[in-house]
Amino acid sequence: MISEYLKNYKVLLASSSKRRHELLKELEINFQIVFQKIEESYPKNLIKSEITDFLSKKKSFPFLNSLKKNELLITSDTIVWFNNKAIEKPKNIVEAKEMLNLLSGCMHQVFTSICISLKDQQKIVNQETKVYFNILKNEDINYYINKFDVLDRAGSYGIQDLIGHIGVCKIEGCYNNVLGFPTSLFCDTIEKMNL
Amino acid sequence: MISEYLKNYKVLLASSSKRRHELLKELEINFQIVFQKIEESYPKNLIKSEITDFLSKKKSFPFLNSLKKNELLITSDTIVWFNNKAIEKPKNIVEAKEMLNLLSGCMHQVFTSICISLKDQQKIVNQETKVYFNILKNEDINYYINKFDVLDRAGSYGIQDLIGHIGVCKIEGCYNNVLGFPTSLFCDTIEKMNL
Repeated sequence: MISEYLKNYKVLLASSSKRRHELLKELEINFQIVFQKIEESYPKNLIKSEITDFLSKKKSFPFLNSLKKNELLITSDTIVWFNNKAIEKPKNIVEAKEMLNLLSGCMHQVFTSICISLKDQQKIVNQETKVYFNILKNEDINYYINKFDVLDRAGSYGIQDLIGHIGVCKIEGCYNNVLGFPTSLFCDTIEKMNL
Repeated sequence: MISEYLKNYKVLLASSSKRRHELLKELEINFQIVFQKIEESYPKNLIKSEITDFLSKKKSFPFLNSLKKNELLITSDTIVWFNNKAIEKPKNIVEAKEMLNLLSGCMHQVFTSICISLKDQQKIVNQETKVYFNILKNEDINYYINKFDVLDRAGSYGIQDLIGHIGVCKIEGCYNNVLGFPTSLFCDTIEKMNL
C-alpha cells in the first residue's frame, strides 16, 4: 500500500481543497493539513503545466526552511487551460457565469502539478486531462452558480457536481486530476522516490 | 434542470446499486427504488453493448405490465469487456483476485446501458468508456479485495475506491459510466424524449 512507503514520514498537506483532503484520506494516508496563503502569481510567459509546476513549487516556499528530516510536504496546483489561456478561480458570480459559457460545448485541458518536498530534495510531477463539455443551457448554468460554491473552483465548476454530471460527456486522462489531485501519479512518484 | 423534464412523472429506479442511487440523487431527481431479481443471463452470441442493452431491457420486464401512465422506470446494466469476453461480478474472493490480475496493466472497456420505460414506449441507450490500469501489485490487490466489497462490482473493482485511485491512470469516455450510470447521456436522452 502507498501508506507503507510513507510510514517513516509525517505527511504535511499544504492545501485547503476539500477534494485533495478526501483523496488523500481515501489513499489511507495519515496527514496533517498546514496552510499559508501565498500570492498565486506567475511569470506571464509560462503555459500549461509550466504554470502549475511553478505554483505548486511556490506554495512550498513558506514551509521549506522549517521542514524537519522526517517530514514530507505536499503542495499542489490545478488550472484549467482553454483557448491558450489559464482560467483560474472566478472572482465573483458574474465571472463564473462567463467562464462556464466559455467552456460550454468545448474541450478544455486541466493541469495539476504535485510538488513533494523533503528536507533535502524536491520532486515536481504533473498531469493533463482533457475534459469535453456538452453545450450547457443558460438555466442550468444559472441554477448551478447560485446553488454551488463555484468561487473555490478553477474554471468555475466541479466535475463531481451537478453541472459535471449533466455537462461533461467525456474525459481523456485521469479523473482525479480534474478533482485536483492525480492519485495514481502521486503513488507512482512516491514509490519511485525510494523513501 | 433535468428534474424539470421529469416533473410530471413518478420515477422508479430498479437497481440496488448504491452508485446509481447517489448519482440520481446528485441529479436532484426524486425517485423510488424498486427491485425484483431477474436471471442475468443473455444469448451467448451477444457482445459488448448488445449484452447491456439486452440485460437493461430484461430488467424492466417484471415491471412493464403494471407500469402506470405517469410512471417512468429506469433499468440499467454495466459490464466490463476484456479480451473479447464480458467480465461480470465475481462469485467469490478467489475469482475477484483472478479478475484484477487479468485487468492489471491493461485497457478494458466498460459498457453501461440505460433502459427508460414508459407505459407506451421504451428507449435504450448505451455508452462505452475505456479504462487503463497500471500494473497492480499483488499486495495491493490482496489488501483491496479483503477490505472492500468487491463481490458487488463488475470486474471486481470500484474506480472510486482505493484500487481505482492507485491503479487507474487514465480513462477515455464518461467517468460516471464506469460508476454504472452515464448521467450526461441519461439527461440528453430524457430531454430528447419530449416527455
